[in-house]
Amino acid sequence: MLEDLKSKVCEANRSLVEHGLVVLTWGNVSGIDRSAGLFAIKPSGVPYADLRPDDIVIVDLDGKVVEGKLKPSSDEPTHRELYRAFSGIGGVTHTHSRCATAFAQAGKEIPPLGTTHADHFHGPVPLARVLTQEEVEADYEGNTGRVIVERFEAIDPMAVPGVLATGHGPFTWGRDAADSVKNSVALEEVARMALIARRIDPDCRELPAYMQDKHFYRKHGPDATYGQ
Amino acid sequence: MLEDLKSKVCEANRSLVEHGLVVLTWGNVSGIDRSAGLFAIKPSGVPYADLRPDDIVIVDLDGKVVEGKLKPSSDEPTHRELYRAFSGIGGVTHTHSRCATAFAQAGKEIPPLGTTHADHFHGPVPLARVLTQEEVEADYEGNTGRVIVERFEAIDPMAVPGVLATGHGPFTWGRDAADSVKNSVALEEVARMALIARRIDPDCRELPAYMQDKHFYRKHGPDATYGQ
Amino acid sequence: MLEDLKSKVCEANRSLVEHGLVVLTWGNVSGIDRSAGLFAIKPSGVPYADLRPDDIVIVDLDGKVVEGKLKPSSDEPTHRELYRAFSGIGGVTHTHSRCATAFAQAGKEIPPLGTTHADHFHGPVPLARVLTQEEVEADYEGNTGRVIVERFEAIDPMAVPGVLATGHGPFTWGRDAADSVKNSVALEEVARMALIARRIDPDCRELPAYMQDKHFYRKHGPDATYGQ
Amino acid sequence: MLEDLKSKVCEANRSLVEHGLVVLTWGNVSGIDRSAGLFAIKPSGVPYADLRPDDIVIVDLDGKVVEGKLKPSSDEPTHRELYRAFSGIGGVTHTHSRCATAFAQAGKEIPPLGTTHADHFHGPVPLARVLTQEEVEADYEGNTGRVIVERFEAIDPMAVPGVLATGHGPFTWGRDAADSVKNSVALEEVARMALIARRIDPDCRELPAYMQDKHFYRKHGPDATYGQ
Repeated sequence: MLEDLKSKVCEANRSLVEHGLVVLTWGNVSGIDRSAGLFAIKPSGVPYADLRPDDIVIVDLDGKVVEGKLKPSSDEPTHRELYRAFSGIGGVTHTHSRCATAFAQAGKEIPPLGTTHADHFHGPVPLARVLTQEEVEADYEGNTGRVIVERFEAIDPMAVPGVLATGHGPFTWGRDAADSVKNSVALEEVARMALIARRIDPDCRELPAYMQDKHFYRKHGPDATYGQ
Repeated sequence: MLEDLKSKVCEANRSLVEHGLVVLTWGNVSGIDRSAGLFAIKPSGVPYADLRPDDIVIVDLDGKVVEGKLKPSSDEPTHRELYRAFSGIGGVTHTHSRCATAFAQAGKEIPPLGTTHADHFHGPVPLARVLTQEEVEADYEGNTGRVIVERFEAIDPMAVPGVLATGHGPFTWGRDAADSVKNSVALEEVARMALIARRIDPDCRELPAYMQDKHFYRKHGPDATYGQ
Repeated sequence: MLEDLKSKVCEANRSLVEHGLVVLTWGNVSGIDRSAGLFAIKPSGVPYADLRPDDIVIVDLDGKVVEGKLKPSSDEPTHRELYRAFSGIGGVTHTHSRCATAFAQAGKEIPPLGTTHADHFHGPVPLARVLTQEEVEADYEGNTGRVIVERFEAIDPMAVPGVLATGHGPFTWGRDAADSVKNSVALEEVARMALIARRIDPDCRELPAYMQDKHFYRKHGPDATYGQ
Repeated sequence: MLEDLKSKVCEANRSLVEHGLVVLTWGNVSGIDRSAGLFAIKPSGVPYADLRPDDIVIVDLDGKVVEGKLKPSSDEPTHRELYRAFSGIGGVTHTHSRCATAFAQAGKEIPPLGTTHADHFHGPVPLARVLTQEEVEADYEGNTGRVIVERFEAIDPMAVPGVLATGHGPFTWGRDAADSVKNSVALEEVARMALIARRIDPDCRELPAYMQDKHFYRKHGPDATYGQ
């Protein structure tokens, strides 16, 4: 079932390696079929080079494995919470990419210092709070998703397609699996640039709001002019 | 038309990937035929791996698309302003390369700290001022070119073949498309070296002017001895 | 003899290059056959690209070469001390990987700042003390192993599968040769992330103990749920 | 003439790319035939991918081109001065490798912070002083070599096979062309590690002399035990 989705999710997971976003098996991508109410996700602990479409696991929005002989990624409940809360998204990516993860470990949001950031994220990349001991012990992966959703109470997830989980790392989302990977690529790169810019000038300021708007709306929304 | 130019501009755009200057589709190269008064530029949002000479768009110096079934890069008006103002240049490259972009985000020029810099840029790599809200809203991409030209009022663009647009990133130029890419490679590398040198010694000084002159004129101008 | 072990140890040594953990010949991997009381180790100074299973040297736990026409790695006595003291390990890797080595040179442990660390090391990556002049002159490589064992007097080597030798670099271990290489990959990456996180916020704190526990035991021990 | 030498020098120059030591054409390697009193060096400005043994230029110790249809590297007089002064060396490499060049730009020696350094350089990597304006204008490239030789008045070039030219970059040497490249690889890596170690602890100290001696003499001199 959902052969096309499984194939695209498999390909998106494999692309994490060529984008330099993962070492070992530290990352997973999923994609959802909204009409079926099912999503396809990487199996846990399988090396990217060995991954085949048939290894991809199909899960419903209650977390039940509907198809697949392997266990889904241990981060499956986090993906699921995001799909349930953010109805406009079609794909989710989680990595431990180096600089985004370092911001998460430092407990700092990524400030919008330049047009590269504004092309992809309309405002800072926010930080989801650290989980309490109770939240970790009860339903760690599900609660990781819930504190992300909590953080987006006043933020449009389509305008800011990513977040940092404190002490852990980034999650991004997008129109589909491949688009969520692109946002992970962008997130890692803007994290690195912000890091370097702040090293050159620790007091360097955010890009003026009117330039952020210009760049974001040049690429997104009804008046977008970027691309074909 | 201009088959040879389109082929070279296509190749120059694709070389951005192998030089590590771009991720996703964050960069574009153009080249001009001065006798025809036309330039060839990357289409907007097309992945480098898919780019073919026939995808390259031909534009005149008033911004009219003369040939091509795709839309030109959204940065086309910036390239155009540079071709109009700097009559000696034959190619333009724009990237969001990591360290040069970080200097642009920090709003700092790249100081000439070593011979690597002086081999390519005769003096600091300058910073074009941030645009006003009016300039952004009226003709953002054209005005990006105009503030670069404004910054070069007292600088020879042939001796300093690159600039940082504040909050945005680098633009470089050269004899032709391929030469403008080489200057982007050099710009990114001297940005990175300057960053590291200043980390080793925050007070480290510029290369003595007589060494800057020696290196620049060893490679450029009528007395150049470098190369074959 | 031990053809399968030699083949796996050869492959593990060669994988150091693709993981970016070594330049020139700065690293070596070994694996042990506990029932035979013999371990297989890289020969000294042989480039990874030239390495064949027949080049791998078989050594017993007293340091006697049992098979092999080449000299074993000069670090062989360090590997041997680790096999003698840590009965649960099946492989050892030594590299001069960049960031882990820098922590060793700075004489600092790697703090557990995030879940990436906690997934692989249950607590800080410890530092073995610097050797005295006498220890260096008498049996340098053996004593390098002994001060590591000394440092683990109160640490479970299966929960913290790596160490930094002051002024020198990292040693990791694992279930077998390949698993010890994976721990070197993880060690280098968490060193780099810790470095960056501390640059973003010099005062950033360790991951709460309850999150460290959650991540470590999700991947290790009888209640592990990660993987297939 | 000297076909074998030209072939090895060609190969050594091409290896600069795979070792990540050069961008564009910023580096050159030479090798000498002491009995013939002739050395073979890269031609100026030729891309490494295009380089063939027949392109290599043969020069005598007075700087006369003895064979070759191309101009030698503009750094040829520096190589020549090193061959004349350091009778034990058989190859010379010059690059603008990133971190070593940054130390040269900052005007700082590379301190021996770890065993990786001590395995290759017995003591700090020294800094040759900046040239005066007269020295630059009279015979820049020859004088670059002379201030290196001046700096080694009290240093054994065989124990410290490399130097930083202030404001410029590194030169290394070795038994032959390939060995001089290896020392450039080691120099860049120890520069990078020193940089990172000092970032972790700005006050971190040099490796104790007895450990520096142990590592250097384990690999070099009559009592060396490293390798086959």
